[in-house]
Amino acid sequence: MNPGTPFFDVVRRQRAHRSFRDEPLDDALVEQVLEAATYAPSAENSQPWQFVVVRDAALRARIGDLTRRAWEAGGRDFERGRLPDRLLADVDRGATGGVAAAPVLVVVCGDSSFCLPAVLAASVFPAVQNLLLAAGALGLGSALTTLTMGFDAELREMLQLPDHIQPFAVVPLGWPARELRPPRREPVDTKMHRDRFGRGW
Amino acid sequence: MNPGTPFFDVVRRQRAHRSFRDEPLDDALVEQVLEAATYAPSAENSQPWQFVVVRDAALRARIGDLTRRAWEAGGRDFERGRLPDRLLADVDRGATGGVAAAPVLVVVCGDSSFCLPAVLAASVFPAVQNLLLAAGALGLGSALTTLTMGFDAELREMLQLPDHIQPFAVVPLGWPARELRPPRREPVDTKMHRDRFGRGW
Repeated sequence: MNPGTPFFDVVRRQRAHRSFRDEPLDDALVEQVLEAATYAPSAENSQPWQFVVVRDAALRARIGDLTRRAWEAGGRDFERGRLPDRLLADVDRGATGGVAAAPVLVVVCGDSSFCLPAVLAASVFPAVQNLLLAAGALGLGSALTTLTMGFDAELREMLQLPDHIQPFAVVPLGWPARELRPPRREPVDTKMHRDRFGRGW
Repeated sequence: MNPGTPFFDVVRRQRAHRSFRDEPLDDALVEQVLEAATYAPSAENSQPWQFVVVRDAALRARIGDLTRRAWEAGGRDFERGRLPDRLLADVDRGATGGVAAAPVLVVVCGDSSFCLPAVLAASVFPAVQNLLLAAGALGLGSALTTLTMGFDAELREMLQLPDHIQPFAVVPLGWPARELRPPRREPVDTKMHRDRFGRGW
């Protein structure tokens, strides 16, 4: 894809990438993707997002280790039997090294001094989604991962996050190891309700 | 804008709309916008979103009344002095009738039987952001509002939401009363940190 790709094409092609080519990623591209993130809405336009862009290889390995531990401590057992085998295997590869092998890990945080804690998630995840879509529009691979938040204290210590900065997601960014086909989704009308829940559309 | 609008143009023009023309909105457009929402990522692709599309005028008025009460019970006092006067006045008009006057209110919910409660917000707000962006791409106005969640029990009763369905946002959809200029944002590098928080970019 390229920056001129129509909006709906970018949306319909979004996939989670969990393996990346061993190829560097310019700061300029990271900035472009994160700038798109900042156009997301936030409670009363408080713009509470903060992005810790981790390039340092040792630090990426430590974050990857936390992710692996969170997966092995319960995530894998929880998902086994719930996920199709192929998706489970892909998530497993991602959580045990694939994601951490991306040249950049963006740890997306929210600053609770900018808005009420109750609306912080509502003011951070839309920016995360802009980030992911922008990456796709530029041909980059990315994924929304939250497993690592299971080790909040360790992650805070590694990244020197003050108390008012809450981490919400770790997003790997890099060139995809392979092109992924467009995703499949449940038909939207199975998720729609007219006026009241359960009435169908 | 139109469906062929380039991705980054849609992103850079997103604004919160809080007043709408008195003009109907076809089901087909609502479906198109919500279909885009379903392409968002979710924890292990659980697709836990549920959309209650409220068109009924009496029900919209009741939701609008809840929103007004939440605003008058504390929201307005909290924001006074924090927001620029013009934004405060706009939010005030939205919360006291502007939003509820949209022909459609989409109450975006998450189904906690589809994924762990801890990852429900992370699996719903990206879909909300797709919804908002898609609306903009089609020339519709929309906004992410969460005030009404302050009256969770009343909202649940109105929409007949079962216990496992959690409401996260009320998104008005309609034709904008007027065109809004592109938003301004803090420079992205003021939100970026290299490797560790507080080190700057």
